[in-house]
Amino acid sequence: MTAEIICVGTEILLGNIVNTNAAYLANQCAALGLTCFYQSVVGDNEKRLLDLVHLAMGRSDIIIICGGLGPTQDDITKETVAKAVGLDLVLDENSAQRIREYFEKKGTKIAENNWKQAMIPVGAMVLNNDNGTAPGLIVKHGDVSIILLPGPPIELEHMFEESVKPYLMKLENGVIYSQTLKLCGIAESTVDETIADLESEGNNPTVAPYAKHGEVHIRVTAKAEDEKAAKKLCKPVVRELKSRLGQNIYATHEQDTLEGAVLNLLIANHLTICSAESITAGMIAARLVSVPGASETVKSGFVTYSNKSKRKLLQVKKSTLEKHGAVSEETVREMLKGAAALTKADVVIATSGEAGPEPSENKPVGLVYIGCMICGQMVVKEYNFNGERNKIREMTTTNALMLLRSCVLEYYSEKTFGKQDN
Amino acid sequence: MTAEIICVGTEILLGNIVNTNAAYLANQCAALGLTCFYQSVVGDNEKRLLDLVHLAMGRSDIIIICGGLGPTQDDITKETVAKAVGLDLVLDENSAQRIREYFEKKGTKIAENNWKQAMIPVGAMVLNNDNGTAPGLIVKHGDVSIILLPGPPIELEHMFEESVKPYLMKLENGVIYSQTLKLCGIAESTVDETIADLESEGNNPTVAPYAKHGEVHIRVTAKAEDEKAAKKLCKPVVRELKSRLGQNIYATHEQDTLEGAVLNLLIANHLTICSAESITAGMIAARLVSVPGASETVKSGFVTYSNKSKRKLLQVKKSTLEKHGAVSEETVREMLKGAAALTKADVVIATSGEAGPEPSENKPVGLVYIGCMICGQMVVKEYNFNGERNKIREMTTTNALMLLRSCVLEYYSEKTFGKQDN
Repeated sequence: MTAEIICVGTEILLGNIVNTNAAYLANQCAALGLTCFYQSVVGDNEKRLLDLVHLAMGRSDIIIICGGLGPTQDDITKETVAKAVGLDLVLDENSAQRIREYFEKKGTKIAENNWKQAMIPVGAMVLNNDNGTAPGLIVKHGDVSIILLPGPPIELEHMFEESVKPYLMKLENGVIYSQTLKLCGIAESTVDETIADLESEGNNPTVAPYAKHGEVHIRVTAKAEDEKAAKKLCKPVVRELKSRLGQNIYATHEQDTLEGAVLNLLIANHLTICSAESITAGMIAARLVSVPGASETVKSGFVTYSNKSKRKLLQVKKSTLEKHGAVSEETVREMLKGAAALTKADVVIATSGEAGPEPSENKPVGLVYIGCMICGQMVVKEYNFNGERNKIREMTTTNALMLLRSCVLEYYSEKTFGKQDN
Repeated sequence: MTAEIICVGTEILLGNIVNTNAAYLANQCAALGLTCFYQSVVGDNEKRLLDLVHLAMGRSDIIIICGGLGPTQDDITKETVAKAVGLDLVLDENSAQRIREYFEKKGTKIAENNWKQAMIPVGAMVLNNDNGTAPGLIVKHGDVSIILLPGPPIELEHMFEESVKPYLMKLENGVIYSQTLKLCGIAESTVDETIADLESEGNNPTVAPYAKHGEVHIRVTAKAEDEKAAKKLCKPVVRELKSRLGQNIYATHEQDTLEGAVLNLLIANHLTICSAESITAGMIAARLVSVPGASETVKSGFVTYSNKSKRKLLQVKKSTLEKHGAVSEETVREMLKGAAALTKADVVIATSGEAGPEPSENKPVGLVYIGCMICGQMVVKEYNFNGERNKIREMTTTNALMLLRSCVLEYYSEKTFGKQDN
């Protein structure tokens, strides 16, 4: 079955709020196996909303409309939907009673316009609102179900969970299950070439790669009669992807992050880490600490933004800075050594680079050195990033995490880590 | 003129990502005085996208479409729009050259499918992408402008700012000029009460406050025949706002940031700064360094996440940590003193707090101490933040910047800073 989502609200059209309701509803629909081809936003305007509801009735089985059920004059969603399907509004005694109780409990007087919320299209199913005054509604018109939900997320989400989900589960046969693989250290175009044969439309499961924050994600989505069968369909495809893309895959679940993967790898190997950051100035440490449990491995870090601080805090030699500059492999090597000597951390990650906007020391904007040292062995890599200052700093941070990950894996697998490099 | 926004992407329809691009574009359109009646989302499907583009061409003057410009097979936005307006695709040599340079600079091989991105509808205007490979496009069809932008926010926002905004400003007759005042250290409701008389609808300029990331912004928007006239209308209102809200205003332009305001204040007073961060673990230093010119004032910083690193790097006393805990005013005072003694920085900012998810040391999640020391005088404040781990860390960072700003202002104005506190 197909569903579509319509959000009503001028504040969304003006960009004053981000439309998180659409994301919530879309996610819930996908989890229920409903195919969602359209999301739309319109303002509180009768003609435009009416046109959109008519359009949606011609192309979707289920229409979820949120917002515009409140007590004020410009809340017109219910009235417009009633008009679209040719139904009159009548007073719903139960809803009137709930509104009365809601205000009694709050101890405040009921403004007259609240009674508008107890009017419902003849024959509509009423969905109780446990967190507010406006009830939700389900209006059937032929084979189409139109579901009206209040706009405030706390009211909408609770009502969806309690009333809409059971209703939709009865309507639907079958579910959708999807699994996300996350990759780093590889371009989207390379991933696409490697797995092009698995991406054909109409496959079940479908395979779709997309670029995200300098990483690549691959989503595998299966349809089946129940979750177990859908998972079973995904399994061989995920296995095939793993065999083709190997260590570039750092996570196999949507909620996993690169910093989480790195942190868990460090914890699993009982390694402590220290950062020595120039161009990233704390971003690497901050991302690692964003993961709960970071205190098991992240102990300390240095922001050595000036040359003086590189010398004073990390014992980088004055001659090195003069001869090679701060943005150089040599300086990063001494930053690694200095931080390791001072903190006795097992792993040190260090960055130095030119973020711009203007080049300095004759080094081009975007030139970055990232170094990783594990138990005395080190690797330093050169990078050239495009973009403006903070894009370069973010790319440096992400690539530092990727380098950390690959160095730890290499150190523990083949023990060749850093050998040719020292 | 009317605009509408179409976002293309299966990941939005599946609810895997929140559609922040729509909010960004809507906000920008509103600021330019464009009336936006519709936002839509469709997947990477030719028929449905084609239908939607046709529908939009019949009802809006400007259609902004984002997403689906990348190199992979399922990126079909450009091809579909070309079909909708009946144009062939031809190779754009400039775009091909930019793609070549992009990969050369990165030092990676160009996968064959990347050249697809250099194909453009005949006669289309090309918008350079400074942060990625897919160029943007503007296709004129009769009176309708169709604007195609890449999906990644960092590429889209930069391209909008650099190329789309100037294009739209030329299209619009009469201009809208809007100026944003940014405030910190004051609640939205207090701002609202203070300026309620200026907020009446129908005024020119309009005055609208809104809360954003723990700050309050006020947008003053005037309509006039040209920018000069619109600016003239804004001027007395901005002056009035400044006189009512005084030092809580840290910036008077949309592009100004809190970290930029703090950095400029430090530079103007020839102060160097050092950070000593526990709960924020580098976030304060990273935000300060995000501003070009940071090297004039940010010299060094410490991430002292473990108790051992607080003792070893900043000389916090073992007895202080045992008696008061790491999350305490006393520990933050010693972090300030330790960092100042070591680096001789004029200003030190320090944080320690409980980010959760679980409380430790019997301190509740959300309890945070932030300290600021200027030339030997110090202030430490206690905060209690709500929300999950990284919300607490972000609130701490923002409040540390606010504290920095108010401490420097106080230090140089009345010289009462830190007096009652030491």
